[in-house]
Amino acid sequence: MEKINVAEKLESFSEHFTPKVIAEVNGQSLKVVKALGEFVWHKHDDDDELFWVISGKLKMCFRDRDVIVGPGELIVVPKGVEHKPVADEEVEVVLIEPAALLNTGDAQSELTVHNPERI
Amino acid sequence: MEKINVAEKLESFSEHFTPKVIAEVNGQSLKVVKALGEFVWHKHDDDDELFWVISGKLKMCFRDRDVIVGPGELIVVPKGVEHKPVADEEVEVVLIEPAALLNTGDAQSELTVHNPERI
Repeated sequence: MEKINVAEKLESFSEHFTPKVIAEVNGQSLKVVKALGEFVWHKHDDDDELFWVISGKLKMCFRDRDVIVGPGELIVVPKGVEHKPVADEEVEVVLIEPAALLNTGDAQSELTVHNPERI
Repeated sequence: MEKINVAEKLESFSEHFTPKVIAEVNGQSLKVVKALGEFVWHKHDDDDELFWVISGKLKMCFRDRDVIVGPGELIVVPKGVEHKPVADEEVEVVLIEPAALLNTGDAQSELTVHNPERI
């Protein structure tokens, strides 16, 4: 029951598209991630995914439109919905999703992270 | 799949100790709440509860110690652990917990909120 400082966790690493677990609550994990550039189109068949932007602007692309999500804003991508996160400049995000959720969902690639680190 | 602005949600009401649902992800709800003063000692037998402080300082009292949680910090209270949130000045918090979790847990009182509003 120690408190967790989100900014300090984000300052502790620099690599992109590598989610790291900072907390768990009722089977969901909070993960911090830095994004820069274009991710891959993918979906998660069984799980929703929540993106809470801490700094920067995240462009969440859906097949029919894009949504720009800024600091202090969040968006929930329901299970089964194809999406592609894009960050023209570095973005810091907290994800809420199951611990075991693969970041690339059904589109495994060199960006896929298995067993995200706990920091 | 609309984005949600946490600060705007918090600005939309003024009452204390009345959590309001702003998002759901995989069976967990994100709720915003304003706290001022002393809550009641309670625990949640079956559910963890996450407190993410947006503004102000939250004193989370446990039976053996207190933890001060400031803006950008969060703390997870595991299921079964007695706790009492205290806010000497107004604090804005995002909670992550099941939608149906009672804010007062096993200690129902006049502060108990049934069926929190969705805003």
